[in-house]
Amino acid sequence: MTVSASPRTVYLDNNATTACAPDVVAEMLPFFTEQFGNPSSIHAIGASVAPAIRTARERLQNLLGVAHESEIVYTSGGTESDTTAIISALRAYPERREIITSAVEHHAVLTVCEHLARHEGYKLHVIPVDGQGRLDLKAYENALSENVAVVSIMWANNETGTIFPIEHLAQMAKPYGILFHTDAVQAVGKVPFRLSNSAIDMLSLSAHKIHGPKGVGALYLKRGVKFRPLFRGGHQERGRRAGTENTAGIVGLGKAAELAQAGFRDENIRVRSLRDRLERELMALIPNTIVTGDVEQRLPNTTTIAFEFVEGEAILLMLSRAGIAASSGSACTSGSLEPSHVMRAMNIPFTAAHGATRFSLSRDNTEEDVDRVIAVLPGIIERLRAMSPYWSSSARAPAEFQPAYS
Amino acid sequence: MTVSASPRTVYLDNNATTACAPDVVAEMLPFFTEQFGNPSSIHAIGASVAPAIRTARERLQNLLGVAHESEIVYTSGGTESDTTAIISALRAYPERREIITSAVEHHAVLTVCEHLARHEGYKLHVIPVDGQGRLDLKAYENALSENVAVVSIMWANNETGTIFPIEHLAQMAKPYGILFHTDAVQAVGKVPFRLSNSAIDMLSLSAHKIHGPKGVGALYLKRGVKFRPLFRGGHQERGRRAGTENTAGIVGLGKAAELAQAGFRDENIRVRSLRDRLERELMALIPNTIVTGDVEQRLPNTTTIAFEFVEGEAILLMLSRAGIAASSGSACTSGSLEPSHVMRAMNIPFTAAHGATRFSLSRDNTEEDVDRVIAVLPGIIERLRAMSPYWSSSARAPAEFQPAYS
Repeated sequence: MTVSASPRTVYLDNNATTACAPDVVAEMLPFFTEQFGNPSSIHAIGASVAPAIRTARERLQNLLGVAHESEIVYTSGGTESDTTAIISALRAYPERREIITSAVEHHAVLTVCEHLARHEGYKLHVIPVDGQGRLDLKAYENALSENVAVVSIMWANNETGTIFPIEHLAQMAKPYGILFHTDAVQAVGKVPFRLSNSAIDMLSLSAHKIHGPKGVGALYLKRGVKFRPLFRGGHQERGRRAGTENTAGIVGLGKAAELAQAGFRDENIRVRSLRDRLERELMALIPNTIVTGDVEQRLPNTTTIAFEFVEGEAILLMLSRAGIAASSGSACTSGSLEPSHVMRAMNIPFTAAHGATRFSLSRDNTEEDVDRVIAVLPGIIERLRAMSPYWSSSARAPAEFQPAYS
Repeated sequence: MTVSASPRTVYLDNNATTACAPDVVAEMLPFFTEQFGNPSSIHAIGASVAPAIRTARERLQNLLGVAHESEIVYTSGGTESDTTAIISALRAYPERREIITSAVEHHAVLTVCEHLARHEGYKLHVIPVDGQGRLDLKAYENALSENVAVVSIMWANNETGTIFPIEHLAQMAKPYGILFHTDAVQAVGKVPFRLSNSAIDMLSLSAHKIHGPKGVGALYLKRGVKFRPLFRGGHQERGRRAGTENTAGIVGLGKAAELAQAGFRDENIRVRSLRDRLERELMALIPNTIVTGDVEQRLPNTTTIAFEFVEGEAILLMLSRAGIAASSGSACTSGSLEPSHVMRAMNIPFTAAHGATRFSLSRDNTEEDVDRVIAVLPGIIERLRAMSPYWSSSARAPAEFQPAYS
């Protein structure tokens, strides 16, 4: 049995994935059927596909401010891009035996790094964050050396939306000849990029976070950066990623990039204002509530709010029953009842971290969506707290409440 | 400018890629828009996608005769499946320092193996083939030992369609505790599978070769086979392939598998008869022509015919102008003017190997398609030979012609 989402569902889990834009699907469709050729073929059916792949690359270049079309390598998504970047750097500089990452990376980066440390003997520097999710710059500076092959630090955090000072971090790594990679899966489409003027060597992105299809992404690879492919075989992507091109997916990624750029300023302003109102009103209505992360340096679409003395999973299930989709952090680690590694890295108090709930918006959201959450969530939290032994025995009372973010 | 294929184009390059079946596209569509959720999410929009992914897995199990749903791991395609299988075997058995493959593998396997030999010191056994593309079983037997971590030998060759005795090869490897992988990208849908009763440990397949979408495939992984993931991070695919599931692609792969199974017997018989007629008539009409590979043990849809004293690329371009799409071997290596490694491995005479042209059919082809090629190709070959200095100076004359395949 398949339950499809009713049109009335309020979807606030856009950091997990987004709906494909109708225009994206429309542009993809011909590449499944009449333009189904393999772009590597020399006959007309194959050759007709190549221009579409070039157009997609141009659109992605425009969104990211990338100077050369050869700097974009299509992949199967964020995880492949992250893995490729990190492994490539290590293989390209085998004499460098250290890796730097942060404590709040997506598992696609963190797990790879930890595996390399455990099984290939790399020394791993995991840079901590403070209570607002801000990177410890002193620790980062101390970890930099000519022994480091690669830094992999995310542009923006998927749970809190906290934005790291990536350009500054990349500049700091430069004197040591370290390759700098950033997982920008959550940042693309939400912050401006100008990679042609950047010290960043490699950047990962994923189509399905920007209203494109799942199963396709890209790796930005600065011209001149040493590269070792993960997939070898065919000569696709200038020999840097073998395998028949996912033409429909690539076309969809390109269109998604174009749409993200077209509405960039206006949509991000509108989304930020929706997010801010949601956050402000929930904070006013629900006591004992913490907005996590760096509220100043933050993606415009994301807020993770920790409701003390309640279980996040219970909140999500009750929201889901009310037709509202939110999340307790990364979809990739859902099912776990422990607070996420991001909440733990920020030392969010245990009683609050358990109730952390992420609302991630997109340009598909409306004022009505925000109204629905505001109408429903205070009651849900109240009911759950009424059942909680911690809440009733808590010394705190609603009257003592002060908003953490005004 | 994008040139779309006119409806009258005769597409005979189905080993490069196939058109998506309309039913495949129809089943995929909802997963871009209304059912766009991330299957790892716990809310209704995410959870509604999981059953579709299970259904796809069941359909693939049915086509391959796979007993357990846990034995199917979705990937981004054939190249990823091949790479994952080979690297996994080596990491799982680090004390075994040898690899066996064949001289006619797809580059997705051959290049990976050669890279591992060159850069990680593995000893690589490349098993030769005879003039009909049949594997040298004696050489294979001699290469088997407890030093070998993995055998990777294709089920059927992409250029000639030659089928290897894969089950026999897998059985021979078993006593040595070697993991046996087969690239079955070209065989799936064209030969019957019953993996539950097989000695095969790992098998690669790709959706776009069976009228499914590009950018998705699968790795069959026999229960109990030691496995080391290529992508780590999220817990998708039971922790064996991190990354948000390509839900639409997976649904498309499942539907393609179902369609392949539904028409399996009848369509393969019909396609074989089309292929046989094409081959028979071309051989009768065009002198100095060789059918390559093992004509007895061969995929029903494939023929590669070597036309002596002409350039394959010239044939393809003239066919393309006549609205017929064929190929000179693997699309992944097109652009090269050298005869393919498969032709060289079979010691096809240089003057013939250069004119090797692959016709690969599918259930989309008709008697009219075959008629078109028969009407057009003899004239093309005649014109090209008239321009060839080799042909005019050749001692051979049309009268001496004997069909290589009757």
